Amino acid sequence: MKDRTCKVEESPKAYHTLAGRGMTSTLVAEEVPPTCHPLGPNNKLVFSAGIVTGTSSPTSARISVGGKSPLTGGIKEANAGTSWGRDLGIMGIKALVVEGKPAEKDMAWGVYMTWKDGKPHAEFFDATQYKFKSLPGVFKEIYAKYGEDVSVCSVGPAGEYGYANSGIAFNDMKMRPSRYAGRGGLGAVMASKGLKFIILNKDGAPGVEIADKSLFDEGRKKMIDALREHAITKPKGGLNSYGTAVLINILNEAGGLPTKNFTSGRFEGAPKIAGEAIFDGNKKRLGKEVYNHACSPGCIIQCSNTWYKEDGTEHTSCIEYESDWAFGANCGIDDLDVIAELNELCNNYGLDTIETGTTIGVAMEAGVIAFGDGKGAINLVYEMGKGTPLGRIMGAGTETTGKAYGVSHVPTVKGQSMPAYEPRAVKGIGITYATTTMGADHTAGYTIAPEILGVMGKQDPLSPEGKAALSRAFQSTTAFIDSSGHCLFIAFAILDIPSGYQGMIDEANGVLGTKWTADDVIKYGNDVLKKERAFNEAAGIGPAADRLPEFVYTEPLPPHNQIFDVSDETLDSVFGEM
Amino acid sequence: MKDRTCKVEESPKAYHTLAGRGMTSTLVAEEVPPTCHPLGPNNKLVFSAGIVTGTSSPTSARISVGGKSPLTGGIKEANAGTSWGRDLGIMGIKALVVEGKPAEKDMAWGVYMTWKDGKPHAEFFDATQYKFKSLPGVFKEIYAKYGEDVSVCSVGPAGEYGYANSGIAFNDMKMRPSRYAGRGGLGAVMASKGLKFIILNKDGAPGVEIADKSLFDEGRKKMIDALREHAITKPKGGLNSYGTAVLINILNEAGGLPTKNFTSGRFEGAPKIAGEAIFDGNKKRLGKEVYNHACSPGCIIQCSNTWYKEDGTEHTSCIEYESDWAFGANCGIDDLDVIAELNELCNNYGLDTIETGTTIGVAMEAGVIAFGDGKGAINLVYEMGKGTPLGRIMGAGTETTGKAYGVSHVPTVKGQSMPAYEPRAVKGIGITYATTTMGADHTAGYTIAPEILGVMGKQDPLSPEGKAALSRAFQSTTAFIDSSGHCLFIAFAILDIPSGYQGMIDEANGVLGTKWTADDVIKYGNDVLKKERAFNEAAGIGPAADRLPEFVYTEPLPPHNQIFDVSDETLDSVFGEM
Repeated sequence: MKDRTCKVEESPKAYHTLAGRGMTSTLVAEEVPPTCHPLGPNNKLVFSAGIVTGTSSPTSARISVGGKSPLTGGIKEANAGTSWGRDLGIMGIKALVVEGKPAEKDMAWGVYMTWKDGKPHAEFFDATQYKFKSLPGVFKEIYAKYGEDVSVCSVGPAGEYGYANSGIAFNDMKMRPSRYAGRGGLGAVMASKGLKFIILNKDGAPGVEIADKSLFDEGRKKMIDALREHAITKPKGGLNSYGTAVLINILNEAGGLPTKNFTSGRFEGAPKIAGEAIFDGNKKRLGKEVYNHACSPGCIIQCSNTWYKEDGTEHTSCIEYESDWAFGANCGIDDLDVIAELNELCNNYGLDTIETGTTIGVAMEAGVIAFGDGKGAINLVYEMGKGTPLGRIMGAGTETTGKAYGVSHVPTVKGQSMPAYEPRAVKGIGITYATTTMGADHTAGYTIAPEILGVMGKQDPLSPEGKAALSRAFQSTTAFIDSSGHCLFIAFAILDIPSGYQGMIDEANGVLGTKWTADDVIKYGNDVLKKERAFNEAAGIGPAADRLPEFVYTEPLPPHNQIFDVSDETLDSVFGEM
Repeated sequence: MKDRTCKVEESPKAYHTLAGRGMTSTLVAEEVPPTCHPLGPNNKLVFSAGIVTGTSSPTSARISVGGKSPLTGGIKEANAGTSWGRDLGIMGIKALVVEGKPAEKDMAWGVYMTWKDGKPHAEFFDATQYKFKSLPGVFKEIYAKYGEDVSVCSVGPAGEYGYANSGIAFNDMKMRPSRYAGRGGLGAVMASKGLKFIILNKDGAPGVEIADKSLFDEGRKKMIDALREHAITKPKGGLNSYGTAVLINILNEAGGLPTKNFTSGRFEGAPKIAGEAIFDGNKKRLGKEVYNHACSPGCIIQCSNTWYKEDGTEHTSCIEYESDWAFGANCGIDDLDVIAELNELCNNYGLDTIETGTTIGVAMEAGVIAFGDGKGAINLVYEMGKGTPLGRIMGAGTETTGKAYGVSHVPTVKGQSMPAYEPRAVKGIGITYATTTMGADHTAGYTIAPEILGVMGKQDPLSPEGKAALSRAFQSTTAFIDSSGHCLFIAFAILDIPSGYQGMIDEANGVLGTKWTADDVIKYGNDVLKKERAFNEAAGIGPAADRLPEFVYTEPLPPHNQIFDVSDETLDSVFGEM
């Protein structure tokens, strides 16, 4: 970006099997100095689609984005479901690496990538006029100019202010900027490089090379069958009907729904914000049942919802469980219209909804506004969008907000806020929060599947027994799934249905020509985790940082009145034998 | 502080030789959970006077304060020269440990300590009326009430807001709140415990027990002779005439005076803010030469200045070199009246002047105000005093301000800002910044003595050669000096005059009845450093955090156009053989 040039290089043979998170974490670990400033010229931003992304494999249009995180100071991979990922795959771009930083501080550039003369081609254009503008309007202009077949990736004002809470927005199926590589501040990294958009036009591109088409098709069929069969992932199943917010009532029931800045595991207003309430509310407002839609092409699960206003017009898409919880239970807010507005503002500004909700929660704890004050919460997000000093405090994230207000009850790990599962009520996920390279992150090792949903057999969420091994197994498998290009939600189906799991492996072997077994999946995941951990350690974030915040060890959580009774030794054992 | 009680315990025999930093770091390492929240109930605040503090030893009225730092997240010892330290020594209190946290969030308490029935006695009183009030007025009220013979320690509004930039103020010889345990945010730790004041009344206390009076007297005499002889420390010598700000011209000449947020080593306005300019300015305004005064009883060096206004009334005391630089060269401000006002505001609010100046520098870098804008800088400190959102960003320190504004040129190590010596121009001090347990801190291993001032023989400041060993030797010795109760400035004299060094050892042996040699001094220092490093490592701050910020490795510094050419291996070697 220093002088806006694009170099196309052949991918080295040694990188043949790298894709998605495997690719982003490898390149970041190999090419980014671990002690560099995340917003300085030496950080790199890496985009990579998964192994099967761009093929006809179901639920696989994921894009991984990697870099050194301004939020955690460590390595970061955040991924999203979007046609942008599919298109990058189709254009044969194994990794798109953004380097350097322009001298001009007040300018921004767009990149329009096309397929030309047998290879990808990048054209840079001045995008300064779009700086600090709300994303939905900007996306409309871009689509009006470049046509509806392109895919768009962009940063919003949050990234342009340099917020450590800023995501990278990708288009959904309706050209909305609603799909986010949200966590860890990669939006600020992109903006620090003077980069506003990357527009992909895949016209004429050759598509993903598939080494063994029949093996791939076999795998793909197994995967489709598993997704269509499992109660959680099948059409009109749990996720398709109620979206991820189906978890609100389930976690509330389990006493694991973090409430009012992680001071309770149960929220009295839960039923009013649950996935069922979204379904019923829309039905009432539209006069008919609305099932969810896909965030990206080729998805069977189709868990993305839309929330409609009283007058039947669209308010926001999508209210995920995490966003619903972050603005709802965590802030003591039980009004879906308020939650929808907060969600939409985050989509406008380019903010991560989880980090924003937990930041509001800490601001409430500090007394800036009261718990339950929906109007106040909306005003706080306006402040973030305007870049006022208060907005900047909050834009820097939950931990910084705690620091600015002298709050000691701050739900963060390695600088990133804990998401929607209470570690004192669901011990395995707490182990994942503590030990993942990403800062607190449920997607890094989603033990909720067995602990809450009974996938692979039900495990007692309150017991720490065996959970270190469980978290480790999930973290390794997840690192592979994040590299495969599949959405993490395939896990529900493939962990319960062995042929689905084999399908995932067959697909990957089909594309790459490899002969991987289930053991190789774990090995692949471990290799990724090892690289990530080495990067973090060199960045000054060693194993001693693999701890939850103090209060979960000292304050019993209602209703179970449990603390996080997992020893440091147990936490250290998760990656002890790597 | 939970229920405002005071327990007097005999000091264990094993702690016989512990005092000052040796005591605070030991107690913090042994009793504070490394991963606790610095502002939570499990942090402790430890006060300890030095081995010879409270005796007739010269230049020894220091008080060490320790705890887990809200600024760095690691262990912290900050010390100050004040009669408060002397009085704690005279009252036979080897360590005063503040524990717990009251349930009442909006209240504050004072403690009045007296000698009664053969032991110290603490009386708690409601001090809520003094909360958020400017310290000079508060000190006047306290002294009016308790008499001029007491010593006072207090936090200001900065600590009460929970700022990670907040010091603990102690009285100077004129009962001003001008002597600070300034760095690392211990003011917020004290305030988090609901503690506003600790007032010491030493009446009737027995004084320091001295095991071998004649050995002590012998040592004391050697120390006095050395201090009276050395050009830097003697009456009407460098420090007594021009104060520590005598260093402004010297560092500017050496190209090592960090200017405009560490972008140059030379400031064109340096002569206008130098110690000589303070001396000349006062002479002009008062019509006579004014030499400096002692910060605390029994000091020979007497390096504290007062700056007077145009009309001859006092403006502020004391403009130290660090403060002068932080507000002056580092902000591009060359007006001593502005610098004095900024200094006085910090004394009013309870802010560390170094961290405040570097924070203003980063705010200038971010464009909040322009470099050189004195009025703007004063307004920013007003914001800090008022606790506005902008003030809270800045109150959280330099690193947080960089994060809130997305600035990548941020001069911090382990979250604490670099002080007034450019590591690219003075390599040894850079090694100290990187490797000390304290975050960037010149006082932890003041290699400036040989590198700039020629103490112990002159060493080339631009060369990294031998500087790891030099920094290590200074860090070990300093850990002892900080435990002895002496001001670090004795080092100028005792490092050049061997009998002075022996005097320091004799004094300590005289008080404690030990038979320490020069080797034991180093061993004592190393023991302290080991405990501190173990605490930090358990807090998640391992050796990989022993690095300077990226920009000193990548941006050559004028006028020498050098980078910090010290390898990671060299930095790791500093404590490699502990």
